[in-house]
Amino acid sequence: MAIFQRSERGNQDMRPITLIRDISNHAEGSCEIHCGNTVIRCTASAENRLPPFLRGKNQGWLTAEYAMLPRATHQRTDRKSMLESGRTKEIQRLIGRALRSACDVNAFPEWQIRIDCDVIEADGGTRTAAINGAFVAMALCFEKMMERKQIKKWPLRYYIAAISCGIIDDEVRLDLEYEEDVIAQTDANFVLNDEQKLIEIQSTAEQDPFDVTQLQTMLTLSQQASDTIITLQKQCLDINKF
Amino acid sequence: MAIFQRSERGNQDMRPITLIRDISNHAEGSCEIHCGNTVIRCTASAENRLPPFLRGKNQGWLTAEYAMLPRATHQRTDRKSMLESGRTKEIQRLIGRALRSACDVNAFPEWQIRIDCDVIEADGGTRTAAINGAFVAMALCFEKMMERKQIKKWPLRYYIAAISCGIIDDEVRLDLEYEEDVIAQTDANFVLNDEQKLIEIQSTAEQDPFDVTQLQTMLTLSQQASDTIITLQKQCLDINKF
Amino acid sequence: MAIFQRSERGNQDMRPITLIRDISNHAEGSCEIHCGNTVIRCTASAENRLPPFLRGKNQGWLTAEYAMLPRATHQRTDRKSMLESGRTKEIQRLIGRALRSACDVNAFPEWQIRIDCDVIEADGGTRTAAINGAFVAMALCFEKMMERKQIKKWPLRYYIAAISCGIIDDEVRLDLEYEEDVIAQTDANFVLNDEQKLIEIQSTAEQDPFDVTQLQTMLTLSQQASDTIITLQKQCLDINKF
Amino acid sequence: MAIFQRSERGNQDMRPITLIRDISNHAEGSCEIHCGNTVIRCTASAENRLPPFLRGKNQGWLTAEYAMLPRATHQRTDRKSMLESGRTKEIQRLIGRALRSACDVNAFPEWQIRIDCDVIEADGGTRTAAINGAFVAMALCFEKMMERKQIKKWPLRYYIAAISCGIIDDEVRLDLEYEEDVIAQTDANFVLNDEQKLIEIQSTAEQDPFDVTQLQTMLTLSQQASDTIITLQKQCLDINKF
Amino acid sequence: MAIFQRSERGNQDMRPITLIRDISNHAEGSCEIHCGNTVIRCTASAENRLPPFLRGKNQGWLTAEYAMLPRATHQRTDRKSMLESGRTKEIQRLIGRALRSACDVNAFPEWQIRIDCDVIEADGGTRTAAINGAFVAMALCFEKMMERKQIKKWPLRYYIAAISCGIIDDEVRLDLEYEEDVIAQTDANFVLNDEQKLIEIQSTAEQDPFDVTQLQTMLTLSQQASDTIITLQKQCLDINKF
Amino acid sequence: MAIFQRSERGNQDMRPITLIRDISNHAEGSCEIHCGNTVIRCTASAENRLPPFLRGKNQGWLTAEYAMLPRATHQRTDRKSMLESGRTKEIQRLIGRALRSACDVNAFPEWQIRIDCDVIEADGGTRTAAINGAFVAMALCFEKMMERKQIKKWPLRYYIAAISCGIIDDEVRLDLEYEEDVIAQTDANFVLNDEQKLIEIQSTAEQDPFDVTQLQTMLTLSQQASDTIITLQKQCLDINKF
Repeated sequence: MAIFQRSERGNQDMRPITLIRDISNHAEGSCEIHCGNTVIRCTASAENRLPPFLRGKNQGWLTAEYAMLPRATHQRTDRKSMLESGRTKEIQRLIGRALRSACDVNAFPEWQIRIDCDVIEADGGTRTAAINGAFVAMALCFEKMMERKQIKKWPLRYYIAAISCGIIDDEVRLDLEYEEDVIAQTDANFVLNDEQKLIEIQSTAEQDPFDVTQLQTMLTLSQQASDTIITLQKQCLDINKF
Repeated sequence: MAIFQRSERGNQDMRPITLIRDISNHAEGSCEIHCGNTVIRCTASAENRLPPFLRGKNQGWLTAEYAMLPRATHQRTDRKSMLESGRTKEIQRLIGRALRSACDVNAFPEWQIRIDCDVIEADGGTRTAAINGAFVAMALCFEKMMERKQIKKWPLRYYIAAISCGIIDDEVRLDLEYEEDVIAQTDANFVLNDEQKLIEIQSTAEQDPFDVTQLQTMLTLSQQASDTIITLQKQCLDINKF
Repeated sequence: MAIFQRSERGNQDMRPITLIRDISNHAEGSCEIHCGNTVIRCTASAENRLPPFLRGKNQGWLTAEYAMLPRATHQRTDRKSMLESGRTKEIQRLIGRALRSACDVNAFPEWQIRIDCDVIEADGGTRTAAINGAFVAMALCFEKMMERKQIKKWPLRYYIAAISCGIIDDEVRLDLEYEEDVIAQTDANFVLNDEQKLIEIQSTAEQDPFDVTQLQTMLTLSQQASDTIITLQKQCLDINKF
Repeated sequence: MAIFQRSERGNQDMRPITLIRDISNHAEGSCEIHCGNTVIRCTASAENRLPPFLRGKNQGWLTAEYAMLPRATHQRTDRKSMLESGRTKEIQRLIGRALRSACDVNAFPEWQIRIDCDVIEADGGTRTAAINGAFVAMALCFEKMMERKQIKKWPLRYYIAAISCGIIDDEVRLDLEYEEDVIAQTDANFVLNDEQKLIEIQSTAEQDPFDVTQLQTMLTLSQQASDTIITLQKQCLDINKF
Repeated sequence: MAIFQRSERGNQDMRPITLIRDISNHAEGSCEIHCGNTVIRCTASAENRLPPFLRGKNQGWLTAEYAMLPRATHQRTDRKSMLESGRTKEIQRLIGRALRSACDVNAFPEWQIRIDCDVIEADGGTRTAAINGAFVAMALCFEKMMERKQIKKWPLRYYIAAISCGIIDDEVRLDLEYEEDVIAQTDANFVLNDEQKLIEIQSTAEQDPFDVTQLQTMLTLSQQASDTIITLQKQCLDINKF
Repeated sequence: MAIFQRSERGNQDMRPITLIRDISNHAEGSCEIHCGNTVIRCTASAENRLPPFLRGKNQGWLTAEYAMLPRATHQRTDRKSMLESGRTKEIQRLIGRALRSACDVNAFPEWQIRIDCDVIEADGGTRTAAINGAFVAMALCFEKMMERKQIKKWPLRYYIAAISCGIIDDEVRLDLEYEEDVIAQTDANFVLNDEQKLIEIQSTAEQDPFDVTQLQTMLTLSQQASDTIITLQKQCLDINKF
């Protein structure tokens, strides 16, 4: 198989990222993220209704859902299969865990925040882009809830950013596009906070195993990228709460 | 209940409509339609694979799906409920019938056209806007199939346009917004072709029955509106096949 | 295709209708309707239990379900497919809307009326026959509830009748049989009240579009037919409440 | 609990049974059975299409389905729950086994017979009445298939009849009604052929265990009853094939 | 087909049975039963939470579930199909009925006992072995509940044992293995109590009908076998409550 | 919360592991693994039938399923919820990826290997124990397929071992038990091959983020543990193919 070469950017470069806030007429918080050709619409909905087993514990909850429009991809995907697929459930569990780690659920008691990440166009890196956009939507949602006096204490503990890496032809590359993703030997996703501490690592050898040195390289690149992403999030949010 | 008054437009005026073609990186045909605050992303996917019972009959098929992003609405809607709801199935049957009436399935033998109408923002009139946008996506899909020599004969028979009407406070209004839709005595949808002939009428008395005169008024308004919509479709498509 | 000719009745004639009341041992109201070869068993069940979101609002609710016995049709139909099909959901939504329009839900607070229309034999016109029979079942159910002092105010606002029309070989025909239904260019259903006002119109061009004149003809025939049907309902019900 | 006493018939008497053949316009064979107030519509559909794993083995297959109309019972039953309930599956497996035992599946190669037993009114004994009526529908179906030259050899091996018994207040009673069924200590169903041989026994102690003597009494009563039922089936069928 | 001959045991002999109690770290009661090559893990879980319709009636409830590990059988079975199959539902209803008959649900008010019978290895007779093992698990569960003062009165009324029989080559055999089960003319299961009274009989002619004499033989063998099984249960349980 | 202290083993010690091969009567390969109190039954089934989209490509496939017996845990788990839960799907995707990485799918063309990991008793570390046991089952399955001449080339590329780590009270611990798992700040799983190269990392901050030093410590401990596990696998397998 011919190896896909990057012509326009180096192995250590991310694709351009754009964050557009307040794109929903209805959601308490919302953000559309563009990362290269990948486009994801993220909304955060505040519902004053917890699942039964969490009620009355003086805490809140946050869950995330992830989906793709059927033709966000090269081949059309069936809606029902997508809704129930293992891949979808794995991704939405990742998004939910990452966002929950960034906030204090005791700060929004009896509220449930519902995050929806809908992929409009897919070109690799959808799960990490979803986390980056959803973080902004979540922060805007909390800002609105503060304004509305629905919560008293600012719930966010830190910023988080997510980034994908991969190994192709034994070289580490940052932020894989779809064409790269399908040929990568190893595919990894990192979620970090604004102190470059780790929230989540998922790294999988799709073909050949990787070694500790390669892991270290991916980690270093991801830490650098997380700074860039968090700077963009701060510009977009312009919230003085942090 | 206080009656919602139209301040910015008359009862016989439609909201502004914008059609944006080629918004998908992958679909054979695509169009995003804005109708007031309602926004719908429409894609047409050509698949060289028919359902088993239609194979080998030297004909094609076209089906439509309709969905809303969970927070396209005031209250967040559950994905699974939406997928299986009677309302969703009713709407996608309507869209499919309307589009099939506009094309000759014998002109694209052994191909299946899959239409997806995903409501990004909902403010009333989503089913009619979906038809208007999906018509453009379908036409662009057929144009691409002609270019690719996948089909030989131009499949479209005529343009179609869809429009909603309603009766509020005993007055007929064209193109209801969500706030009007919830208080309408009667809610109607018309699909017409470019000769102002009728493809479909669905008219429902939500509260008080309507009479033949009111039906006639709604029909006349819809016929006028269909001309406007079809003019926009023609500008957007710029296809000389018709 | 050879056009199916009516030998025994004219284009403007309905098939004979028979209404048999009180056919169920258990239901609060029941009626079996025969319309030509179409036979439908309609029951109305009064349940003192509303869905959660309607409780405590001092109003009632009415829902309808529609199903066919598997061999009511030429080919046997699978039970599960029938239960979940878009066609089934579309029809039961129509039946429910039509019946709800004929009654005042505030007159049976905290009660839910469950209408079941089970097609025993199908020969076209099942959705309209279902409405005609279900209206009688519903009225008998309300009569029983008055007798039992479960409700105080008579809930019915008017009689309703439903009738199908179609266009075959460019001629309008009333009350299509199955053999006609499959070849009809246009297929329409009308629901009217006892003042010939309109509750619902559903008219679909299966092949060629129809024009306003044909719509007008179908409407006029349906209005005449509705008088006949309502006369039969009155004879069957023999209720002095109206 | 006051024990329900039989006033009109003795413990050893069955309720009156009526078999009405050819009640379906479409099914290859059909029979409606009335057993006291229990009414079941039975159809047999011949399909020239086997499930994949049975094709090409030069044999046929027969399956049965059992359902109730939602208001065949005192309380309305939900359609979906009924379709998937363990009780429903248990009953349709029983019906299928009983009917398959009565025919030679090699006599209708590559055909599938689909039996549908739909309970119109329920008053106890529905599973046994379903078998009795379905046997007639199946026989009529085979007769039609012989006429149509779809099969060459008469597939039936013998007549079968099914009957319920129970123990109430330590006394054995034949053919329980619903009111008796709910209080029975033991509930039993027997399927026998025309030589009084046994096809199936299902006997369950709902409260207190039963002893061998009681089993023997139930068996003897059932054998007598089976003669009566088979005589009725023979009159109804009037087939000289046996 | 060559008839499978028993070499190592006579037609009236059971396979060796072993009962191993307390095999679960978590369940209130548990027992693994080996019956020849058939191995089933049975647990009884006491939950202080009844289904809604049973609450507040001062009684308890017991339900059973039955499943097989996918490769407990010659061919691997799909998990979802197994969970929903008619056979599974039929078996778990049988197990539940048999165990409920052996206990007084009024003796454990507001408690639900959940029995799980998971077949580790299948070689015929799984439903009867499941009952024998589950009885021990249930008894141990009640013993623990007595110790914990969760219940005051010993709920068991009697011991129960279940055994399968079959007719092969016109001979009655006790306790069929899988190889025998597939060729049996008749397949029967008996549940008896410690007085040799009957709780349940299920006897099915898979091919040729059976007669009363054969039923009597099967019954006698089962009664003898039940004594052996109950002796083993008593040794295993060593409870003085009976 | 009081911190759970390890009394019997140090933070860097694994629990004792036992591998028992050939525990299934039917599966081509099987292994039961005990890791402390966690017990998992792993089977590998070879099926000569690929999913449609993989047929005719001269390659094989391997999939894994993971489930728990309902009472493998402190609280009983519902079977259907477990089958469909995101956690279950995430785990079985992990097991499948890890095992596929260890074998060459081209070496068993047109065969599908189905791995089943059923948790009999759960006490933490079930997903890693499942991988360790399933590897043995898979290897035994391939050995049997070689013996049966179903495949010609030995498919395994290397041994793999999986191990969990966690951070509690800011200290890294190897191989968490359930009591530790619920309080861990970070929970991580590593899959490595016999050259200590990495197949998969999944590391999640359940509460506070972790830093690169902690990741490095977990990785070093896991590499050491993987040597121990692979030595046990080699003793158990005694296969000279590697």
